[in-house]
Amino acid sequence: MSEKRPARQPQSGHHNLDPHLPRYAARTAGMTASEIRALFAVASRPEVVSLAGGMPNLAALPLDSLSSQMAELIANDGLVALQYGSAHGVPALREQICEVMALEDISAHPDDVVVTVGSQMGLDMVTRLFCDPGDVVIAEGPSYVGALGSFAAYQAEVVHVAMDDQGLVPEGLREALGQCRKHGKRVKFLYTIPNFHNPAGVTLAVERRAEILEICREHDVLVVEDNPYGLLGFDGQTYPALRSMDPDNVVYLGSFSKTFASGLRVGWVLAPHAVREKLVLAAESATLCPPTLNQLVVSRYLATHDWKGQIKTFGENYRERRDAILSALEQHMPPGCSWTHPDGGFYVWVTVPEGVDTKAMLPRAVTARVAYASGTGFYADGFGSRQMRLSYCYPTPERIKEGVRRLAAVLESEMDLMRTFGSVNPRVVSGPENPSPDTA
Amino acid sequence: MSEKRPARQPQSGHHNLDPHLPRYAARTAGMTASEIRALFAVASRPEVVSLAGGMPNLAALPLDSLSSQMAELIANDGLVALQYGSAHGVPALREQICEVMALEDISAHPDDVVVTVGSQMGLDMVTRLFCDPGDVVIAEGPSYVGALGSFAAYQAEVVHVAMDDQGLVPEGLREALGQCRKHGKRVKFLYTIPNFHNPAGVTLAVERRAEILEICREHDVLVVEDNPYGLLGFDGQTYPALRSMDPDNVVYLGSFSKTFASGLRVGWVLAPHAVREKLVLAAESATLCPPTLNQLVVSRYLATHDWKGQIKTFGENYRERRDAILSALEQHMPPGCSWTHPDGGFYVWVTVPEGVDTKAMLPRAVTARVAYASGTGFYADGFGSRQMRLSYCYPTPERIKEGVRRLAAVLESEMDLMRTFGSVNPRVVSGPENPSPDTA
Repeated sequence: MSEKRPARQPQSGHHNLDPHLPRYAARTAGMTASEIRALFAVASRPEVVSLAGGMPNLAALPLDSLSSQMAELIANDGLVALQYGSAHGVPALREQICEVMALEDISAHPDDVVVTVGSQMGLDMVTRLFCDPGDVVIAEGPSYVGALGSFAAYQAEVVHVAMDDQGLVPEGLREALGQCRKHGKRVKFLYTIPNFHNPAGVTLAVERRAEILEICREHDVLVVEDNPYGLLGFDGQTYPALRSMDPDNVVYLGSFSKTFASGLRVGWVLAPHAVREKLVLAAESATLCPPTLNQLVVSRYLATHDWKGQIKTFGENYRERRDAILSALEQHMPPGCSWTHPDGGFYVWVTVPEGVDTKAMLPRAVTARVAYASGTGFYADGFGSRQMRLSYCYPTPERIKEGVRRLAAVLESEMDLMRTFGSVNPRVVSGPENPSPDTA
Repeated sequence: MSEKRPARQPQSGHHNLDPHLPRYAARTAGMTASEIRALFAVASRPEVVSLAGGMPNLAALPLDSLSSQMAELIANDGLVALQYGSAHGVPALREQICEVMALEDISAHPDDVVVTVGSQMGLDMVTRLFCDPGDVVIAEGPSYVGALGSFAAYQAEVVHVAMDDQGLVPEGLREALGQCRKHGKRVKFLYTIPNFHNPAGVTLAVERRAEILEICREHDVLVVEDNPYGLLGFDGQTYPALRSMDPDNVVYLGSFSKTFASGLRVGWVLAPHAVREKLVLAAESATLCPPTLNQLVVSRYLATHDWKGQIKTFGENYRERRDAILSALEQHMPPGCSWTHPDGGFYVWVTVPEGVDTKAMLPRAVTARVAYASGTGFYADGFGSRQMRLSYCYPTPERIKEGVRRLAAVLESEMDLMRTFGSVNPRVVSGPENPSPDTA
């Protein structure tokens, strides 16, 4: 982690057109459009197979029954559902959230749960509570792009630690923490997505979990465990949450976005008691309270639907798509490419041969009617140009196969050009191998 | 504004029980429970007449028709309503928001509107964009407690400027800005609630508006206009928004919490184009996107209901309550008290005789089964101990009258004690008159 890495490219020069430029806070300089976001516009054209986004596939939701539930809720409890609530969240929902978390061995008190506007808000609140400018957050490399956005908004510095196919590498974590200590950097927390990682598609091996927690304890570093995909294992398998193994040193982030409905924006934070008190205050200044309606919708859904059965159905859909993408990758990708083999979640992480730059190649891919997310968006430090994230969550298996076929053809012609003219992309990072969860 | 004022009391000593204490960011020290929040628990007991909260009275909402609308929305557009959207907000709703703002003479492009999770989030995002620690925000004294919370979360310093019954006093603003300049302080924006002020209940006179804008221009200071109550004038009167008079130097915050339903948490920011781009990025890192469901509910409501008629009905309810509270105050309050006479909105701001401390008196009031919000919560600098905010928005007119009767009795006995023993409250602020919008 001490090698010199290319700095992130600064935002191109719109600034001089903005008369408010001298007024912005320092943190605003770190707010740049994510590469993934810039992509959505082109990638959403119907002729493009988008393997770029992370939208859950909601087609299996029981809309008719949700519709009548919602009608009943407004007719009977409308004056509550449409009124302000507390920043802490609806008590009944917080109890139900504890039942959800029990599936991953978490034993928690509803008082220690804070409902948030999606777990993105949880992330933002935790960063707000803990990070002064210049503080370090340790994160897997690659890491969730939305987390990197929150860390940047609070001017935290991100130090990436490599993964392999068993998830975060304990030795890498130990080394990173040692280096930070050596350089006098204040590390505030380890941010980790242990299960079905976004974007890497790997899962932290159970036998590593205690060791990771132990290392963080040793270095007096908090653990922030982000777990939106934990119940979406393709064989119904779940893993013990880090929170279940060290309640006092783990802040846990959960979400209904992937297990029920993302458009409701209902997530939560489970935090040690003293942290929870501060979280409520932070949340109050951020949004006053999460929407009451949405909390009651989730609460009713959990109380009246077979929500575990629904998660199983979602999982079956995703497994079918995972199978489609893995077999298409196997069939079509040129030699020299490798990828992860997820057992749950939404994503495959692909590494392409040296010399190919996934960010530079993207416009050519979109011209060939396939979109992906370039790996660079998932690093805070410019790495990831040999990687890409492929999402298999949303398109049909047939579209996925067609998308991979197109992508492979783009890659082939990119590699042809390279063989003929040398590297086609002058900005390819040379030097040490990118840390990445390759399995090949 | 340069007088020495008592510092805010630090939070009482829970801290030493918190093992995470050394880990928090510096900003966390400024996160303290608002006095109003601490009050909600006691004030919500049914025997207490609460004149403390600011919950809109939703009883007039057409729940049956909302119920069937909601059912239809999920049945027909469920896969959109329950899916992620953009951080910018639903385009159709942003167009409708422009129609709403046109009622206050604002001409805006839907692209420049960003939908937020209540206007509290708008406030938080604007502060995030502009305020470095130590930067100054100018705000009316008193000011909205939630705004003070956001400013504290970003470590901004608040300088209050006095109001009179015509709203913010231009001369006071000029002086405050001059003092800040003299002391080398960076003022980032004026935060103002021009219409039916929370908590002061006054409205910025139309003839002052251009002058306020001009002063801010002169001092190169942005204006943040917070306008949740603007359409709730009791005679249907509206005022030209500051934004309508200086589009390039005003960021406007709007909300459906008081004109439709607070529990949906749908608000918005209208900002100059370059600022708007950054707002979307900030919002993305804060919540990813506002809930799609809630945006579509508001959009349908605006498209299918007589929303202006509904606002008129709300206004009539509030006028009836305003009349009740003003006549009860007139009838019961002891000599030496004064209060504002709102023409819209939710609040009356009361000043009590010198020597009475509204914060110290509050437990005695709650024992007498009436609650209010002590004035100190609305100042960042410890002022306001001779003031209180009375909300007339929620209780019935009969309850309001009973509440004021009880409150007057508490005040009487407090003043009796004073006459007998001198001041009963050692911590009463002596010195210059509190700046406050007294009309007496």
